[in-house]
Amino acid sequence: MATKNLTYDNVDITGGFWQEKQQLIRDVTIWNVYKRFEETGRFEAFKMNWKEGMPNKPHIFWDSDVAKWLESAAYLTKKQRDPKLEAIVDEVVDDIERGRWEDGYFNIYFEMFEPQNRFTKRGWHELYCAGHLIEAAVAYAEATGKDKFLHLMMDYADLIKKIFMDEQSAAFDSPGHEEIELALVKLYDYTHEERYLELARFFIDKRGSQAKLPEGDNYHRGTNIQDHLPVREQFTAEGHSVRACYLYSAMADLALRDNDVSLKFAAEKIFDNITNAKMYITGAVGSTHIAEAFEEEYRLPNDTAYAETCAALALALFARRMEKLEVDSRFADTVERVIYNGFLSGLSLDGKSFFYENAQEIDLEERRIVKEALRDTSGIHFPITQRLEVFNCSCCPPNVTRFIASIGDFIYNYDDETIYVNQYMDSTAKLGELTLVQKTDYPFDGRIEFTLTGGDRKVALRIPGWCRVWSVGKNGASCGAVVERGYAYIDANDGDTILLELRISARRVKSNPRVLTNRGMSAITYGPFVMCLEGVDNGGSLTGVRLVGKSFTLGRDEQLGLPCLYCPAVRESTDGLYSDKTTTEPFTAKLIPYFAFANRGETDMRIWVESV
Amino acid sequence: MATKNLTYDNVDITGGFWQEKQQLIRDVTIWNVYKRFEETGRFEAFKMNWKEGMPNKPHIFWDSDVAKWLESAAYLTKKQRDPKLEAIVDEVVDDIERGRWEDGYFNIYFEMFEPQNRFTKRGWHELYCAGHLIEAAVAYAEATGKDKFLHLMMDYADLIKKIFMDEQSAAFDSPGHEEIELALVKLYDYTHEERYLELARFFIDKRGSQAKLPEGDNYHRGTNIQDHLPVREQFTAEGHSVRACYLYSAMADLALRDNDVSLKFAAEKIFDNITNAKMYITGAVGSTHIAEAFEEEYRLPNDTAYAETCAALALALFARRMEKLEVDSRFADTVERVIYNGFLSGLSLDGKSFFYENAQEIDLEERRIVKEALRDTSGIHFPITQRLEVFNCSCCPPNVTRFIASIGDFIYNYDDETIYVNQYMDSTAKLGELTLVQKTDYPFDGRIEFTLTGGDRKVALRIPGWCRVWSVGKNGASCGAVVERGYAYIDANDGDTILLELRISARRVKSNPRVLTNRGMSAITYGPFVMCLEGVDNGGSLTGVRLVGKSFTLGRDEQLGLPCLYCPAVRESTDGLYSDKTTTEPFTAKLIPYFAFANRGETDMRIWVESV
Repeated sequence: MATKNLTYDNVDITGGFWQEKQQLIRDVTIWNVYKRFEETGRFEAFKMNWKEGMPNKPHIFWDSDVAKWLESAAYLTKKQRDPKLEAIVDEVVDDIERGRWEDGYFNIYFEMFEPQNRFTKRGWHELYCAGHLIEAAVAYAEATGKDKFLHLMMDYADLIKKIFMDEQSAAFDSPGHEEIELALVKLYDYTHEERYLELARFFIDKRGSQAKLPEGDNYHRGTNIQDHLPVREQFTAEGHSVRACYLYSAMADLALRDNDVSLKFAAEKIFDNITNAKMYITGAVGSTHIAEAFEEEYRLPNDTAYAETCAALALALFARRMEKLEVDSRFADTVERVIYNGFLSGLSLDGKSFFYENAQEIDLEERRIVKEALRDTSGIHFPITQRLEVFNCSCCPPNVTRFIASIGDFIYNYDDETIYVNQYMDSTAKLGELTLVQKTDYPFDGRIEFTLTGGDRKVALRIPGWCRVWSVGKNGASCGAVVERGYAYIDANDGDTILLELRISARRVKSNPRVLTNRGMSAITYGPFVMCLEGVDNGGSLTGVRLVGKSFTLGRDEQLGLPCLYCPAVRESTDGLYSDKTTTEPFTAKLIPYFAFANRGETDMRIWVESV
Repeated sequence: MATKNLTYDNVDITGGFWQEKQQLIRDVTIWNVYKRFEETGRFEAFKMNWKEGMPNKPHIFWDSDVAKWLESAAYLTKKQRDPKLEAIVDEVVDDIERGRWEDGYFNIYFEMFEPQNRFTKRGWHELYCAGHLIEAAVAYAEATGKDKFLHLMMDYADLIKKIFMDEQSAAFDSPGHEEIELALVKLYDYTHEERYLELARFFIDKRGSQAKLPEGDNYHRGTNIQDHLPVREQFTAEGHSVRACYLYSAMADLALRDNDVSLKFAAEKIFDNITNAKMYITGAVGSTHIAEAFEEEYRLPNDTAYAETCAALALALFARRMEKLEVDSRFADTVERVIYNGFLSGLSLDGKSFFYENAQEIDLEERRIVKEALRDTSGIHFPITQRLEVFNCSCCPPNVTRFIASIGDFIYNYDDETIYVNQYMDSTAKLGELTLVQKTDYPFDGRIEFTLTGGDRKVALRIPGWCRVWSVGKNGASCGAVVERGYAYIDANDGDTILLELRISARRVKSNPRVLTNRGMSAITYGPFVMCLEGVDNGGSLTGVRLVGKSFTLGRDEQLGLPCLYCPAVRESTDGLYSDKTTTEPFTAKLIPYFAFANRGETDMRIWVESV
């Protein structure tokens, strides 16, 4: 059964973990990204003043970098007006108005450097840039009521529809980097103009037809860009993981709006393929740097994991859309896995720096060996060990800011009878006459209290997949609940208080034995957090570490401001390369939430560890 | 302290494991290889009658394939004359005499197809072929006393010396595929002609000078062919593993004969680098198919192991030479590891088929997933799962035959005071007036009885590195022994009987924790055998198998005719990709010696397994 989502504008994050993150985005991150984009000429590029010989030549995807920043600014300003943010957006919008062509076209790179080649290069991110600009325009109109940006982008979308769909005069049929599909659905949702949904549907339906492709362009075809089969025949996650999850998100969007059963079927198969065989325990996806792609099923190497921040984010977007198609907690469980782990690791605790790739293991000794090795045929690629304030391919930083700024989107779905609680965040939500207040210190504490006012409604509480012991109560007394597909249903009347208590404890998790790289090892989780060991807490190197304690002691790392776990452990070494003589040195291992790794200098890090 | 080796011609294998293998080589293998070489035109090629349009165009390394077969025939005929074998060798020798150029040059490929280009193409295996022909010629002269082949090859070696060393008129300085260096030492040892040792020394010394190289030939330079540094500055094993170990063998040969301390130092460093960081537990080396090379330290993937039979063999040749430079059991331990495991796996139990690559793990489900995957960027290479009677690159089959036919080479070293027993094989050895009879059913039984007659001599018995409990006795009474660097020294007088008893039991072996691929897993060994699980014995798939029994029960597999081990085990599966809910299904696991894997059809195989 399909449900609707309660969008971020109806939900205020009022305290706790995510409120702190949102404040960090508002105070630090968005300005740090702005500064970087200024320094690298990304904002200036919209004025199209760049001349040969100047630094910072505009790149094909800069439009999208700035667009995501604009979208972030819109979300922030919706919750708390900020004239400084708005002034920046308005200036860019004016630049776009000045810079666009008469027919509505806007693209910095093609206008400046290859005007004759617009809509001929599938791999050049042209429609991807358009998509992000459309998303920003919708967000800004919704946030401020100002509609200039929206109209500029409606004109552009109309042009794209004319060229690609009506005339079919472009050199290719569907985008090389998906994104515009889900943006067009947003545009349709906001404007109710059917033609935008039609264009999204056209791009989705054309995909995999391989009808048109510029000659010699072999990268931008086939599985790498999910173009190997018509989308309704795609049942596995393939190729570039960010593109893939943006496409799958749009497929779920279309399936919902068109009640398209075959699209829904494909999206669900793909979702299960990802979460059953192609996702790290942190929710990261896209395990290889080769084409930034999904690897074969169960091939999830830790040390060479690629695991782009944008890919984890895109998986959360996809899962969030699946939640609406069907009430089943596996979708929101996946969102939770991503947002507390493989996505959030992309941002430093001080809000200033970012991972593009997210290491799933760091072994400095292995890197030293490979780096110092004499042979040159290895092709081994290791992710970076420290977040950076600046990188050339800056898709992730503004993606992080827009995601956290609008995280209120992820909490509630609803239908006529029920409010579905997908995520636990201290917040106040409005749904028509109803108000639902959620008070909690989740994920640090499993106690979550809801107060419903303004009417009666059934409330469905997600019981996280990791949770083994939980209880519900109403108005101070314990009460029963029907549990269906991971949600506990409770009837609530006006003024009722519902208390959910989830027992949070350390768990030893094994992976499916088909994940050959994790054989013989366990990961430790604590509530929604995947935990990790860092060298800095554990005597430097993590070589030969084995957890030997049966249970864990909860502690707190004051520097990180986060819970940590302690466990008796040994460091094992062998007499030679292969031996039955091992020596063990005991110590107390400390584990911290994975997302907070690499905030205290370069050091070993491991999620999967030998364990009793 | 340097020692001499007692060569195979002084040692008769008289029973047990290796006698059976030698009989198999004589009765089956050498003829199967002969038939294949006949069918593919390899023998016919020596007549140089091939014309365009005919099948089986001669290949650059066919001379060496046949040469190794000739060398095998020589070893066999030395022990038991075989007119049929001799007639074949004599015919090839006549062909060489007819086919060679006046100046002594002989090479099928260059004579037939590129006569103008001789000695200009470093990567074309020309000197490699010459080396194998020289080894065959020495062996045949030694075995039969016939010296035509020897003189043809002495002429050829003289020509090579003239062109490469005296005139320095060749287009390169040292071979692209090492082998001739150790062959020239053999030729020197047999003929006592200093000039052959000089040429070997020249090639060794020139290596790494990079003085001359045909332009544009980038593969045949650098680490791939151990040409990155002067050999005395090479301290790690690099590049193509067969070439590498042939070079290292020759370095040890030269170090011994020249008492060259810096060469010995380099060879020893390299040996330790291999055995401490770059060798599979089976003694296999060269873990990647990319350039058939050694990988970085501790990078020893099991599922994609390359592990060529010739590379394991070459490591045994290298280790055998190190034994002579220094009395230390680590060298003979390595020989033992190789010959009972990673080398012997190259030959089927029926003696008819061969592995080129030797899988260190077979997971058919993983292969199915990769094979059926849609993406095309993986570059994953899996070794074959079944031995073949025929393959185009047939270096391994005749290498296996010559090695086993001359395995008597590996048992004894000696100096004026002591006979060193490196390997335990039922045999009778002659050393001057002395006769040493060794009676044993090793490796199936740890009881080894020696009887010395013809004089008095100290006997040094290697205590294998895997052995924890052992005892020695003399003439029926237990006796003490001084143990030094892995050898137990006992004084023996004429007529004395010495009894060595090695306790053979199952052991759980861990690898150095730096071998990331083996974390959390153990290998099981039994005496010198590395054991493995095969799917055919263990319910099909080996997914999720964990050994849970503390001890093992010894049994026997009648079909294989080999010992096997039983152990209580479970098959573990998880609820989903990551879960703390696991289900276990108990069963009794069966392990067989690794070398005998893949003799009962295509099935899963695993050495490293989760274990209590």
